[in-house]
Amino acid sequence: MNWPYKDLLGTRELSREEILLILDTAESFKEISRRDIKKVPTLRGKTVITAFYEPSTRTRVSFEIAAKRLSADTISISGTTSSAVKGETLKDTGRNLESMRPDVIVIRHSMPGAPHILAGALASSIINGGDGAHEHPTQALLDLFTIREKKGTLDGLKVAIVGDIAHSRVARSNIFAMKKFDVDVTCCGPPTMIPPFLEDLGVNVEYRLDKAVADKDVIMMLRIQKERGGISVIPSVKEYAIFYSLKEEHLQTAKKDVIIMHPGPMNRGIEISDAVADGPYSVILDQVENGVAVRMAILFLLLGGES
Amino acid sequence: MNWPYKDLLGTRELSREEILLILDTAESFKEISRRDIKKVPTLRGKTVITAFYEPSTRTRVSFEIAAKRLSADTISISGTTSSAVKGETLKDTGRNLESMRPDVIVIRHSMPGAPHILAGALASSIINGGDGAHEHPTQALLDLFTIREKKGTLDGLKVAIVGDIAHSRVARSNIFAMKKFDVDVTCCGPPTMIPPFLEDLGVNVEYRLDKAVADKDVIMMLRIQKERGGISVIPSVKEYAIFYSLKEEHLQTAKKDVIIMHPGPMNRGIEISDAVADGPYSVILDQVENGVAVRMAILFLLLGGES
Amino acid sequence: MNWPYKDLLGTRELSREEILLILDTAESFKEISRRDIKKVPTLRGKTVITAFYEPSTRTRVSFEIAAKRLSADTISISGTTSSAVKGETLKDTGRNLESMRPDVIVIRHSMPGAPHILAGALASSIINGGDGAHEHPTQALLDLFTIREKKGTLDGLKVAIVGDIAHSRVARSNIFAMKKFDVDVTCCGPPTMIPPFLEDLGVNVEYRLDKAVADKDVIMMLRIQKERGGISVIPSVKEYAIFYSLKEEHLQTAKKDVIIMHPGPMNRGIEISDAVADGPYSVILDQVENGVAVRMAILFLLLGGES
Repeated sequence: MNWPYKDLLGTRELSREEILLILDTAESFKEISRRDIKKVPTLRGKTVITAFYEPSTRTRVSFEIAAKRLSADTISISGTTSSAVKGETLKDTGRNLESMRPDVIVIRHSMPGAPHILAGALASSIINGGDGAHEHPTQALLDLFTIREKKGTLDGLKVAIVGDIAHSRVARSNIFAMKKFDVDVTCCGPPTMIPPFLEDLGVNVEYRLDKAVADKDVIMMLRIQKERGGISVIPSVKEYAIFYSLKEEHLQTAKKDVIIMHPGPMNRGIEISDAVADGPYSVILDQVENGVAVRMAILFLLLGGES
Repeated sequence: MNWPYKDLLGTRELSREEILLILDTAESFKEISRRDIKKVPTLRGKTVITAFYEPSTRTRVSFEIAAKRLSADTISISGTTSSAVKGETLKDTGRNLESMRPDVIVIRHSMPGAPHILAGALASSIINGGDGAHEHPTQALLDLFTIREKKGTLDGLKVAIVGDIAHSRVARSNIFAMKKFDVDVTCCGPPTMIPPFLEDLGVNVEYRLDKAVADKDVIMMLRIQKERGGISVIPSVKEYAIFYSLKEEHLQTAKKDVIIMHPGPMNRGIEISDAVADGPYSVILDQVENGVAVRMAILFLLLGGES
Repeated sequence: MNWPYKDLLGTRELSREEILLILDTAESFKEISRRDIKKVPTLRGKTVITAFYEPSTRTRVSFEIAAKRLSADTISISGTTSSAVKGETLKDTGRNLESMRPDVIVIRHSMPGAPHILAGALASSIINGGDGAHEHPTQALLDLFTIREKKGTLDGLKVAIVGDIAHSRVARSNIFAMKKFDVDVTCCGPPTMIPPFLEDLGVNVEYRLDKAVADKDVIMMLRIQKERGGISVIPSVKEYAIFYSLKEEHLQTAKKDVIIMHPGPMNRGIEISDAVADGPYSVILDQVENGVAVRMAILFLLLGGES
């Protein structure tokens, strides 16, 4: 099976089969990063541009490592050095980059829909590396990869996503992706962090953390998105932590083999306690490792590779 | 023919033959970027440092892609992370970099003459990536490449350069380069943006846009160089746009096959209308594509390659 | 002989033999950077991350060039684009990076001990690229390499280190390293720049520059560490320069074949005069060149290479 699209913009528009294609392809790439010589010539002579207009370590580094381990050339653009300061539109920046004939442009932007604008304007493959509070599809795909790796399947699982749902692109992309499978999703957070009509996406809403995590296979904790106004909708971070910090005691009512996830960066003592973050149920670092494999798979598939 | 100099600092000192050597060499490199595997081993084991002390996307990325497609290693330095903040002189920074044995240093700097200081102090090849309002030779060379590609020749053409001439290194480098050929150059802009004694460079000066573009083969639009004081010499950007924005109606009196150029970044609605920027006469994105080929040629020639 | 440690955190804990292993290995790497094709496949498929949370040109570029000339892939992280702004701890950032399976992480951080925190938390090899006023071991090792190259030996030499000793990680790492050899070290600076109990490290303290440099084989000048408060402990930079700027006249009483060193960036006219910096005794640029070779050796040894 081939990847049928030019771009990867979100999980909303992906089918179950398309998601599985990425996950299955990623499986074959995972062991490359564990080799002594972590490099294959698959994408030699390809050019991958990462254009990150919001601060990022994890995702940018993950994409760069993924591209380099496939032998692609990488070019990195960040917001502060960009021609945006000179008054150029995003579309023109994109067209200019495309004229240099990159094969893939990975874009992170504070504006929801920015990757879609590029995707519509350019013939190059666009990967959404996070657009405002909208989508972060590669994060959701690495989350699904990790869940499947640990649980053997996605269907039939019960997942709680806890925190600043309203401002979280990770939550949205995960919800869209999980609903392509038979996953029971419960979102939990203070009412001001639960967007209206969230249930319309097919998820349950629960305001109490202890209720939300009960009987769950997977608990995904999110940080407060300070840079998108998350702080302004709660009385205080301290109070937030009292009600929505995941502690060991919460795991008593979850499934015995529950896994704890977090897309990072973690704010220890706020949304997650040290004991949970570093405990035996945590798969947080597996997520990061799997991120490289999933992004290798996506680069490979977008550039015409067959699974 | 070999490149006779260590450096590429400006077009002023280049002969017609030297310019043609670069353009001819660039022709043979252009198709590499259109291949499936966009990489040749020509400069394997060479080190290219890009030191951009002014914000840049286009030019830095273009140089990095050019170097990588020739298999050179690239190292990127930007102003904000530089040792300049620790009180080091530019010459010492250059000498330090040179001690690490790079083959080429590409420098962009707000100070006119900065690349010449490095060129005089170092044995490494220096490429001027733009120095203040002085010169931007690789931009002019890619402009000439694009004109020749579209028109088949440079000799006998009539060119209008319109905008903030006084603050534009692109205008200067183009004028110097075009005057090595039989090109009739007309500069146009408000009187405060036309430097005194401009005619001494062998160009015509015209203050009215409609007159400037009449009968022209090439119209090159420039943005207001806000970062070099361009805003302070006009009453308002709005008024500037009324008199110096290139619109479709202006193209009526130009040659039928006129081409519209812009070095980017464009400020749409100010110096250029959408209809012109995106219209059939625009070769703005060809310029960007050709920039990679021209920079590949320059790196190749400076490092001893023969055309 | 193999490198016996996972990391390189400081010179304090290194033995004479371990230092010599690095210096000897570096000798064999030095000529690679003088070749026409400056690249060997030694570390192909390895991933080196440089995480510089303080501004740096010299050291970061040196590490990147060293890694690339050994064919490793390099990923660069700087403070301003980091996830630190999102509230992540250094340890978590490190664990996240490690999950992407880099082979080496080079870290520069304003906090003394930051590399040690990473080294303790991660299985990856950590190289200290400078931690606050604590250590900068690769600088000291390239200094020793340069001294040995010029003098044929380290034992029996007399060295003066002059300047802001209290805030200098370069001074500390050099003192620790030199004391593993039979080197007579004299530290010199105004009393406020000499840390208490400095003599306990086995060095002499001298407040007058003319006395400090007398009969010395090596004079190492340091800049005032403005970013770590060096300015606040002297009456004025002008007065400092009067008493502690190395001028040609000072060299009269030094050994005839004295060498002048400076880790850079130099502040000409403050701690060093032009005549000395650019004079025949200066080996300042040799230090920079040797830095690449020493860092190649360290990367090679840490990744299991045998001398």
